[in-house]
Amino acid sequence: MTTYRLHYAPDNASFIIRWVLEEQGPGYETRLVDRRAGAQRSAAHLALNPAGRIPVLETPQGPISETAAILLWLDEAHGGLLPPRGTAARARMLNTLLFVANTLHPEAIQTFYLHRYGPADAQDGMRAALQARLRGHLAMLDALTAAHPPDGFDAVQPYLAAILRWLALYPPGKTAWFALADYPALHGMAAALETRPALIRAAAAEGLGAHPFTAPEPPDPPEGSAV
Amino acid sequence: MTTYRLHYAPDNASFIIRWVLEEQGPGYETRLVDRRAGAQRSAAHLALNPAGRIPVLETPQGPISETAAILLWLDEAHGGLLPPRGTAARARMLNTLLFVANTLHPEAIQTFYLHRYGPADAQDGMRAALQARLRGHLAMLDALTAAHPPDGFDAVQPYLAAILRWLALYPPGKTAWFALADYPALHGMAAALETRPALIRAAAAEGLGAHPFTAPEPPDPPEGSAV
Repeated sequence: MTTYRLHYAPDNASFIIRWVLEEQGPGYETRLVDRRAGAQRSAAHLALNPAGRIPVLETPQGPISETAAILLWLDEAHGGLLPPRGTAARARMLNTLLFVANTLHPEAIQTFYLHRYGPADAQDGMRAALQARLRGHLAMLDALTAAHPPDGFDAVQPYLAAILRWLALYPPGKTAWFALADYPALHGMAAALETRPALIRAAAAEGLGAHPFTAPEPPDPPEGSAV
Repeated sequence: MTTYRLHYAPDNASFIIRWVLEEQGPGYETRLVDRRAGAQRSAAHLALNPAGRIPVLETPQGPISETAAILLWLDEAHGGLLPPRGTAARARMLNTLLFVANTLHPEAIQTFYLHRYGPADAQDGMRAALQARLRGHLAMLDALTAAHPPDGFDAVQPYLAAILRWLALYPPGKTAWFALADYPALHGMAAALETRPALIRAAAAEGLGAHPFTAPEPPDPPEGSAV
């Protein structure tokens, strides 16, 4: 294989890794994980990622599957995603990357798959509680972004932008609570990212449209299915 | 101040950082966050961590508050927590560290504070769903630990051991579902960690007893309160 092999499904967290690989430029190939067939729970996929999730990035040193772990690995291998060691900017970015990974991302995912976390008759109440929490997280991230505007590309922006997209689209019919315009610094960040050639290539590969963050539409991927 | 100032509450995630600082040896001082008074939501604390959570580690480069971000930072500053760059062992450990941070830790926390995530009358059902998920996560981590036994101290073990302790203790009266002995590799890891002088010092400072992981008892801290 080329340097890397990315196991992906369209508009899943694997999109973040595809985009970053397009930014960094190492050779990579992709393998579709057919979610309609439950391929993320197949023996072959579980051998790469026993958590049964997407993405998996196969590297020359073995598979990595947690999105933020892959971002840290790719920064160590190719640079360009985190500020230099020992700097205040790096302290802030590691902290924000981990907040996105351990709080924003799992709570967003929970609103997409509520049935995994509680009884069917409680889902409206669970959704409301999570949406209130997510509003708080987004307000905090908006304030942080306003206080420390992005200086070029980094590890946090693609991760955060993908989650902003998902919150606008998923689950279908239940997204009226979210409006990117309520978070002006995040909106500005997302609009600037849409002009990046690497983002445009990655979005085209997964059928995410011309404005995947500021005017997202359901994906129309050339292969596979987002859910 | 000394090199670091750790804002902590007994038996909170700050314990993981106290322990690692004891292992690594840099100078540090502690500041109790009085949870009974809600001090984690005070203006002074929010200025250090707008997420309003514990821990915060003040460093010469500013505050860091997400547990895994602090572990990454302390490894970069003092070493001894992650395998060398570019190795298969590092790929595995970054992945496991992120899984603990973004899945095991938040889902454990959710079982301690269910009221934040859904309606009061749904909490038994939510707890059951989360416990089933946690059993799966722990079985996976047990298998990974058996396949790749710890080789000395690292970033994952103290984080994972603290969560194993919490699952045995919190919330009081609702922990019968969990038995460390069901996960033999994790049990062996936890027992070995209890012999480390740095763990013994950190546990004494927060009143966690002589066997904080294999035979945990509610904390009896010299100052402050765990909840």
